[in-house]
Amino acid sequence: MFKRIGIIGVGLIGGSIALDTRRFGLALKIIGYDANRDNLNKAYSIGIIDKVANSIDELLDCDLVVIAVPVSYVCDILEKLYFAGYDGLISDVGSIKGKIVKKALKLKLYNFIPAHPIAGTENFGPEAAKTGLFENAFCIITPFDGVDSETLSMVEKFYKSIGMRIVKLSADEHDRIFAFISHMPHAVAYELVELAASKGENFKFIGGGFRDFTRIAASSEEMWSDIFVMNKDNVVSAIDEFIKYMRSLRDLIEKGDKNTLKEKLGNIRRMKRELYG
Amino acid sequence: MFKRIGIIGVGLIGGSIALDTRRFGLALKIIGYDANRDNLNKAYSIGIIDKVANSIDELLDCDLVVIAVPVSYVCDILEKLYFAGYDGLISDVGSIKGKIVKKALKLKLYNFIPAHPIAGTENFGPEAAKTGLFENAFCIITPFDGVDSETLSMVEKFYKSIGMRIVKLSADEHDRIFAFISHMPHAVAYELVELAASKGENFKFIGGGFRDFTRIAASSEEMWSDIFVMNKDNVVSAIDEFIKYMRSLRDLIEKGDKNTLKEKLGNIRRMKRELYG
Repeated sequence: MFKRIGIIGVGLIGGSIALDTRRFGLALKIIGYDANRDNLNKAYSIGIIDKVANSIDELLDCDLVVIAVPVSYVCDILEKLYFAGYDGLISDVGSIKGKIVKKALKLKLYNFIPAHPIAGTENFGPEAAKTGLFENAFCIITPFDGVDSETLSMVEKFYKSIGMRIVKLSADEHDRIFAFISHMPHAVAYELVELAASKGENFKFIGGGFRDFTRIAASSEEMWSDIFVMNKDNVVSAIDEFIKYMRSLRDLIEKGDKNTLKEKLGNIRRMKRELYG
Repeated sequence: MFKRIGIIGVGLIGGSIALDTRRFGLALKIIGYDANRDNLNKAYSIGIIDKVANSIDELLDCDLVVIAVPVSYVCDILEKLYFAGYDGLISDVGSIKGKIVKKALKLKLYNFIPAHPIAGTENFGPEAAKTGLFENAFCIITPFDGVDSETLSMVEKFYKSIGMRIVKLSADEHDRIFAFISHMPHAVAYELVELAASKGENFKFIGGGFRDFTRIAASSEEMWSDIFVMNKDNVVSAIDEFIKYMRSLRDLIEKGDKNTLKEKLGNIRRMKRELYG
């Protein structure tokens, strides 16, 4: 158990970590900081955090600081903590890891454990925070050369305590995988909505399929513009590859070869069932 | 109320129509026919239909025949009913309407009302049939020149009686709209799964977003290869347009212009919220 945990960024993920920290009795005091003062006050007033910090400096006596801000700000905060001489544990929950790990290596920030809890909803902000969000979810940890092993085991234990299953990957591997299974599909959802909207008043006929499909197009643009840009090499090549696949299906449809098409779709259906139910 | 209703194709949609026909007391007897004898027997044994027909000829004394087979077979069945001299009401539930209406016009089949109930799940077959599937769903009807007005009002009344809201469109308009909001998005879901599967063992990290997103890739390949081929002009041009949109987002990501990207994603998010909640 920690005495003081600091949460930087009290939105969906940071707020939910705070709620579960309290629920599982993992800290005596939970201190929140957020560059967005409204969100910070909201998080305090709805009981997500015990105390408001007016700056990152007020978190320096924490045992663990969890950084839960849009990914593009993580590196700056790591730098701030480093230069302020913070020597407790640090973790982040950013959806991309490569650029963050690069920064940590440069700073020799060996008390930092990069993590990515695979949890979330398309809602965001402190009001979206909820207990149990991480139950049974994977937490991908991407430790880098030189990282302190005691830090690693304590941070792992913390994420396990709020219900997660730890998986270790390299930061590069993480970013490549997530470009394919998360970042590029989000790009697809955004463009499906943009295209359908450009067609005007057809939305009243939209069935459950399209609705589920494009639910994620309501996600935070702050978060996703960050992810796309910070993982742009992987995302661009995933989109390129996806376009190639789309074009090959398009050509098959144009040829009107129903049997080949049916066989292909059947194979995909079986792959989907086998791979993830 | 009808004396006898015939259902050709006792899968998800046909079976659910049969169940609601009984539930709302719309027919004294529900007779089913299916080219797949196993499905036909299953539909009878689980109580979806009252009687098995061994051929379409055994449906000729029905007051209404609903054709609920994969779209590519609808035209053949219309021909069969026509040449057998069937003179009751006919409707179909196919997801594409252009080619079907063309055939009906050629046959001067003025007792036929083409329909498309916007309902369904990714499951299929008689076991997937359920009551209430059509409650509050849109039923798009695409009547053509010359169609009998009494037939039209009786078929409309039938679909309304099982809970649907009627909307009239031209067959061409219907096919163009659905290429964008349903057919092309299904193509996208199939290709997302195919691409992700080609990447190997990454599926354990798949979050709720991707799962919802690609749920429809488990749909029937029989149905979807039919839809793609029968609506191929519209589907191909929807895919082409979608690829253009994807490429423009890809280029924006490659440029790394976060502000423009964020503005674009924010606009899409707001469009989505405004247009369909």
